[in-house]
This record gives sequence, C-alpha cells and structure tokens, in this order.
Amino acid sequence: MDEFKGVTVVRKANVYFEGKVTSRTILFEDGSKKTLGIMLPGEYEFNTEYKELMEILSGELEVLIGGNSEWKAIKGGESFEVPEKSKFRMNVMKVTDYCCSFLK
Amino acid sequence: MDEFKGVTVVRKANVYFEGKVTSRTILFEDGSKKTLGIMLPGEYEFNTEYKELMEILSGELEVLIGGNSEWKAIKGGESFEVPEKSKFRMNVMKVTDYCCSFLK
Repeated sequence: MDEFKGVTVVRKANVYFEGKVTSRTILFEDGSKKTLGIMLPGEYEFNTEYKELMEILSGELEVLIGGNSEWKAIKGGESFEVPEKSKFRMNVMKVTDYCCSFLK
Repeated sequence: MDEFKGVTVVRKANVYFEGKVTSRTILFEDGSKKTLGIMLPGEYEFNTEYKELMEILSGELEVLIGGNSEWKAIKGGESFEVPEKSKFRMNVMKVTDYCCSFLK
C-alpha cells in the first residue's frame, strides 16, 4: 500500500534522540494507529506498550528484540514484530524509513 | 489546527541531505498538498516550483529568501513564504518541525 487514504494525521512530530528518530502519527477510521518515521544512523532503544509491527520501507539496521541475545539484520522491504510491554534495541546503519503499526 | 482529517498520506518519506531533512506528503480532498517535515541542525537550500508557506511548529532557524541579502530569524510558531520558481536557504540551529503548504 503506497498511500493511506481517509486518515487523520497529527500535525506535530514525535521527536526522539534529539531528532535522530522522528515520526508522524496516523489515525485510522477503525481506531487503529500507525506512525511513519525516519531513523538516522545511531543506536536507539524503545519500550513497547502494545505489540508493534515495524515495516522497514528503506534503510538498513540490526535489531535486538526483548530479552533475545541475537541481533537480527533488517533491510528495506523487511519487517519485525515486538511483543507488548517489551523493548527493542536498534543499531541503524543507513537512514531508515519505517511504518510502525500498533497492534492491540 | 492540530490534526488533518480525511487526508491521504504518502507512505514513503521524502529524504534530503542524507536524512537531515525529511518529510511526509499529505494530500487533501481539494487537491492541495502539504508536507510535514523535520530538519536537523545544518545548512540547506531548496528551490520552489510553487509558492510555499513554511509554518514552523517548533525549532529555530534563519532563512534567506530568493535574492534577498538579509537573513530572517524564525522560531516555533512563526512562518515565512517563498515565491514560486524561487529558492531559499536555511541555517537550522535547533531541530525544526514544520508544515509546508504548496500554494497555487
């Protein structure tokens, strides 16, 4: 899907890590939420409240999910999921464009 | 206006200057277009095709518009316009969240 139609976009950006990770919140008619974001090269850790599906539209990174000990290489066109009430660490190697879906 | 309702969002980001300037395209029912973007500190130059209204939601920058010789300081809550078929240079001092409207 190249476009999201009939959605609500929150104007103000979500800004993390001094702007090296930023996103915009997209609200859907069915009450679901996604964020469209950009990560610049760097290391980041995030906590999850809900289960998250991270679709990598372009870029290159490694991710360490929850209590796992194994980093997973991810590139554009690939995705990964993070359980609810968990966390994930990312080592972003190339500017990464992503779509994060919050799954309830 | 804190949200844009009933709009279409292009999923893929617009990426400039190695990701230091990025934006998402928002399409409105009346055919108009805006981008919601983030600029990290740095110096950037852009050309305009259409007249642009740059609303700075947060951040701090200086802008030099078209053939002007005088830089103008702009901060969150302020805005500036750039004529069509012109250009503008920005010196961004703080992470800047903006909304750019393309005016025809």
